[in-house]
Amino acid sequence: MILLYDLAGAGDRRFSSNCWRTRFALAHKGLAIETRATRFIDIPALEGGGYPTVPIIRDGDDVIVDSWRIATFLEARYPAPSLFDHPGVEAFARQLQSWLVTAVSPALLKVFVLDLHARLDPADQTYFRQSRERRFEMTLEQLADGPRETRIAAARTALGPLREALADTSAQRPFLGGVRPLYPDYLAAAALMWPRAVSPGPLLSVDDPILRWFERMLDLFDGLARRAHKEWDGP
Amino acid sequence: MILLYDLAGAGDRRFSSNCWRTRFALAHKGLAIETRATRFIDIPALEGGGYPTVPIIRDGDDVIVDSWRIATFLEARYPAPSLFDHPGVEAFARQLQSWLVTAVSPALLKVFVLDLHARLDPADQTYFRQSRERRFEMTLEQLADGPRETRIAAARTALGPLREALADTSAQRPFLGGVRPLYPDYLAAAALMWPRAVSPGPLLSVDDPILRWFERMLDLFDGLARRAHKEWDGP
Repeated sequence: MILLYDLAGAGDRRFSSNCWRTRFALAHKGLAIETRATRFIDIPALEGGGYPTVPIIRDGDDVIVDSWRIATFLEARYPAPSLFDHPGVEAFARQLQSWLVTAVSPALLKVFVLDLHARLDPADQTYFRQSRERRFEMTLEQLADGPRETRIAAARTALGPLREALADTSAQRPFLGGVRPLYPDYLAAAALMWPRAVSPGPLLSVDDPILRWFERMLDLFDGLARRAHKEWDGP
Repeated sequence: MILLYDLAGAGDRRFSSNCWRTRFALAHKGLAIETRATRFIDIPALEGGGYPTVPIIRDGDDVIVDSWRIATFLEARYPAPSLFDHPGVEAFARQLQSWLVTAVSPALLKVFVLDLHARLDPADQTYFRQSRERRFEMTLEQLADGPRETRIAAARTALGPLREALADTSAQRPFLGGVRPLYPDYLAAAALMWPRAVSPGPLLSVDDPILRWFERMLDLFDGLARRAHKEWDGP
């Protein structure tokens, strides 16, 4: 039984993209897990302390932090079914993760940062506000400035390269990984589980190919992601 | 013998990223080709007219335009060796191409747009200036505004996701595609052939992992890309 420390907001809302990456990877490997709802302020005390972020997993005596390190650890210890299947898909995952973090997540965050803040456990709200305002060098209100529609349009534009990659998916090849989902699918779906968990309205237009693929991702593993607490059926 | 219409500047300088994608793809397939140096202003008359851009290839009676359509045409007609090898690598190529076009190329162009303009055939300079000034809604001089070091720093930052994907490459797995280069390698190398052909100084720092990989790309196919006209050994 693998233990996953999983970031949670008020009402046990599992909103963290980084933790969803690991949640999907563990499900892909078919591993039995237990998740522990974790607030930001709980992280410094986890597993003896010293770990800066979640996800963290404990597998027997091994404690691993960071979603990428967890993915490669799982791949080494539980090789089948592979998360990557081909070295080119592993390179894809690295490039995709970096692009999601630098180009997509900031655009998404602008849409719903105040919604996210409102849905955190009250004890986490101060930490979240202070750390994010320091990182972005502006208040959360300044980050979310401007009409919501403008920020949504920017987020949709930021997702362009993912949309292009998914434009060719079909019943015969429904995932980025091909016939079956692979780690690039989990990275991209995890990025969208975040708005789904906290944003009070849809982000993507109903005819967006990203949405058709995301529905398939929600269905995986007996609806693992679909059963998660959501604000909206979207993203 | 496949004919490739290949964009060329003054002194037969083959600078086009889009054409380099096709050049690499043809070499990967081991196909005999002839290239025809083409200026922007020559494009409307090629192959009976009606094609908006190069690369264009003619293979027997088939005329194909657009580097992506050419890649999938070659893959269907000459399956081995595959440009993709795995459906996840084809999805990688789609996502990478879109990211290169929307995030990387604009940042690169800001560095050397005036160098590129100066190295075009004089008959192409008017077309290039007018079409690009219309597209970007500013003059070429405004596009290249600000200190060169600032624009270079922005271009290096824009390449972050590629750098991350290449950080794991090694003697055992030297390419994005793994042991051998695949179409994602050609897409990324093609984007860098552009500054190499026209920019009068280096773009990347000497310790950049992108540069180590690019050296390997220059060596492929008996130094096909290394033999091309260059301003600098870089990018």
